[in-house]
Amino acid sequence: MDRAEERPAAACSVLLTDLYELTMLQAYHAQGMNDIAVFELFVRRLPPGRNFMVAAGLEQAIDYLMALRFEGDELAWLAGQERFSRRFVDSLATLRFTGDLDALPEGTVFFPDEPILRVTAPLREAQLVETRVMNLVHYQTVAASKAARVKLAAGGKLLVDFGLRRAHGAEAGLLSARASYLAGFDGSATLEAGRRFGIPVFGTMAHSYVQAHDDEACAFECFARSQPGNATMLIDTYDTELAAAKVARLTESGVPATGVRIDSGDLGEHARRVRTILDDAGLDRITIFASGNLDEYRIDELERSGAPIDGYGVGTRMNTSADAPFLDCAYKLQEYAGVPRRKRSEGKATWPGRKQVFRRRGPDGCFTGDTLTLTSDTARGEPLLVPAMRGGEPLEPRTTLEEARDHARSQLARLPMALRALGAAPAYPVEHSRALRELAAQIDAKH
Amino acid sequence: MDRAEERPAAACSVLLTDLYELTMLQAYHAQGMNDIAVFELFVRRLPPGRNFMVAAGLEQAIDYLMALRFEGDELAWLAGQERFSRRFVDSLATLRFTGDLDALPEGTVFFPDEPILRVTAPLREAQLVETRVMNLVHYQTVAASKAARVKLAAGGKLLVDFGLRRAHGAEAGLLSARASYLAGFDGSATLEAGRRFGIPVFGTMAHSYVQAHDDEACAFECFARSQPGNATMLIDTYDTELAAAKVARLTESGVPATGVRIDSGDLGEHARRVRTILDDAGLDRITIFASGNLDEYRIDELERSGAPIDGYGVGTRMNTSADAPFLDCAYKLQEYAGVPRRKRSEGKATWPGRKQVFRRRGPDGCFTGDTLTLTSDTARGEPLLVPAMRGGEPLEPRTTLEEARDHARSQLARLPMALRALGAAPAYPVEHSRALRELAAQIDAKH
Repeated sequence: MDRAEERPAAACSVLLTDLYELTMLQAYHAQGMNDIAVFELFVRRLPPGRNFMVAAGLEQAIDYLMALRFEGDELAWLAGQERFSRRFVDSLATLRFTGDLDALPEGTVFFPDEPILRVTAPLREAQLVETRVMNLVHYQTVAASKAARVKLAAGGKLLVDFGLRRAHGAEAGLLSARASYLAGFDGSATLEAGRRFGIPVFGTMAHSYVQAHDDEACAFECFARSQPGNATMLIDTYDTELAAAKVARLTESGVPATGVRIDSGDLGEHARRVRTILDDAGLDRITIFASGNLDEYRIDELERSGAPIDGYGVGTRMNTSADAPFLDCAYKLQEYAGVPRRKRSEGKATWPGRKQVFRRRGPDGCFTGDTLTLTSDTARGEPLLVPAMRGGEPLEPRTTLEEARDHARSQLARLPMALRALGAAPAYPVEHSRALRELAAQIDAKH
Repeated sequence: MDRAEERPAAACSVLLTDLYELTMLQAYHAQGMNDIAVFELFVRRLPPGRNFMVAAGLEQAIDYLMALRFEGDELAWLAGQERFSRRFVDSLATLRFTGDLDALPEGTVFFPDEPILRVTAPLREAQLVETRVMNLVHYQTVAASKAARVKLAAGGKLLVDFGLRRAHGAEAGLLSARASYLAGFDGSATLEAGRRFGIPVFGTMAHSYVQAHDDEACAFECFARSQPGNATMLIDTYDTELAAAKVARLTESGVPATGVRIDSGDLGEHARRVRTILDDAGLDRITIFASGNLDEYRIDELERSGAPIDGYGVGTRMNTSADAPFLDCAYKLQEYAGVPRRKRSEGKATWPGRKQVFRRRGPDGCFTGDTLTLTSDTARGEPLLVPAMRGGEPLEPRTTLEEARDHARSQLARLPMALRALGAAPAYPVEHSRALRELAAQIDAKH
């Protein structure tokens, strides 16, 4: 079986990239340049409203690198573009990713300037993969970083991703289901996320289901009969409290609901009234699930107010990371042919060379500070980047999503208290080592 | 050939949907409910910073509806979930979309409450398609609406989508290339958007290309030699003005650059200095292209300052619609089995029945106001929703992307002046007809 077919999640044309990757490759090909290049992907600064980030997307990046190849129809299309020489297009037919990948394990908390991953490969391979590797790792990191905040706000309450419909396309829907599960959500409403990633799938009913029936109580009854033991009723289509009373009567009559969902109005206030209605009927086993325009801020308010809500459906604002829908990240050349490189553009200068992050912990296990230095150097603490691929092959066994989720949980538990807050905290200390600063100064002095 | 294979853009598992669609379908199946349902997709309110929206994504929604089916492996997975009865899962094997679709043509300017599309189909089909139809149309509409603002700010300047790397996944990258082209961009950096949609593709070089060479002038020369007649040099890796002078000398020596790109610092100020350097060398034919953190606000500033910039690369902030990454849209049941339906949830009540939008124009051709009414009613002006599918088949000939782009251009030209501004304008008048208000009141009175 072809490698690309083993893992369909990554199946995407190699032409899903920027034209400039290929114009550069053509120039490199013409010049015979293909020495070992080292690129690192990192975030320049935290977006407003974020105290930390959570690395995600490595699994899909590995799948992409393993599957990388130009198929016949892609080569034919390129050859027809009148941009590329025949010899260059022919050279692409045998191109594979043969390099090394080092990365933060998925679920690792990280900060600006710290490499999320490092690609070490012949220049053309390392350059070509820029666009799609960023596209995969950036988005999942955006979603996981947002979802981690939702998880911190929701504590132990059930959290379900509800956002496929307003995620930015199919892949965003699927990958944010994965990223949010990794960051601590309990599951997703997206069926394909269940099939593809083994994520628990949750679902209730839509308003249209209630509306399609002439009678709301009848809608509830039919639903409960068709999903015995697993029927959550949406109760806000007309009048939330009246509907809650209908659910109670139905359950008392032997057609049990397992939960109710409230999707509009003052969620905390409705939850209190509905809880009273259900409890008065002796139905404290029926859970209350809330949804509608939720994010970490709204959930934090509900939790602080003591609203009797058992779980939250969080959609759009998590999947789009609405208050910070992108990270200022970059994939930059740090070394070529054994020589460290530095970009010095205004406001966008990079730290040269192959780098490693060392993280220190206090007596309570919490993170106390990081040092960014060269791989040839060392520092106190635990090194964070670990090998993920060697010679184009992934290191086995690959990390499972459950393992990554456990890692994220342990990472979030070790966040300093101030960084766990939803508001802005003082920056976490990331120190640039003397070795790194000296290398940067040396390179600058040469130009 | 299988229909699904004809149009690979829509190829996506039918399981890319919310679980609740299938729990509802199972209940409908158990009850034998499958009369004709009418659902409409609309936006409840404009996000902050938007005066209008641009409809996009209809083409992909049609592709999806045409290809809708459960494959054997999908049915087998569902059967294994212990949620669904065997009879219900079996019933899905023959499910196809057999209904009608009416919609705003892509590129149409629209406002809150106005249906973007209407699905009229047997209940189970119309319900099942909710999630993916929204996912496709919502995102492209978000991107087209943002891109239209960028186009209004940039006037006749060249505009290129640069955002694949930070778009939310593969499909967001591809579909925002399409949506921005539809809204007036000139092209995209994304190769696959060229292959899939025939969109013109643009590309320059990355900083890594310059950094990989020991000498910047040498990097430029090799690049120009490898892409004769089409070489835009990235000049801000080290010192922008020094690099511009190198480009000038190179061109004078017979290795011509066609353009330069500036990606950092004060873009307007650098462009002025670089323009002077090039013009002093008699190279007014070399164009200046700007990129880096651009959106409609930044481009508007640059244009007002008279910066000598010939074109803009706009990435992340357009593809993610960074200041408004989602629309408050909904796909709601408006009629079932011949009876108009109305959801009355707090703050989320809907307008019942099958609706049409009529738009009036002033003597100058500009839009002056819309009326939202029932399809059984009429109003002054031009009806906006048109048939797109009948009996599960698209109306032929289908609209091409170029036709949709022309339509968008003509729509933007007819926007009232106040709505073309980047700042908030008074709301465009959308009137709810008497027939519509009476129907809503009648339904409310019955409950």
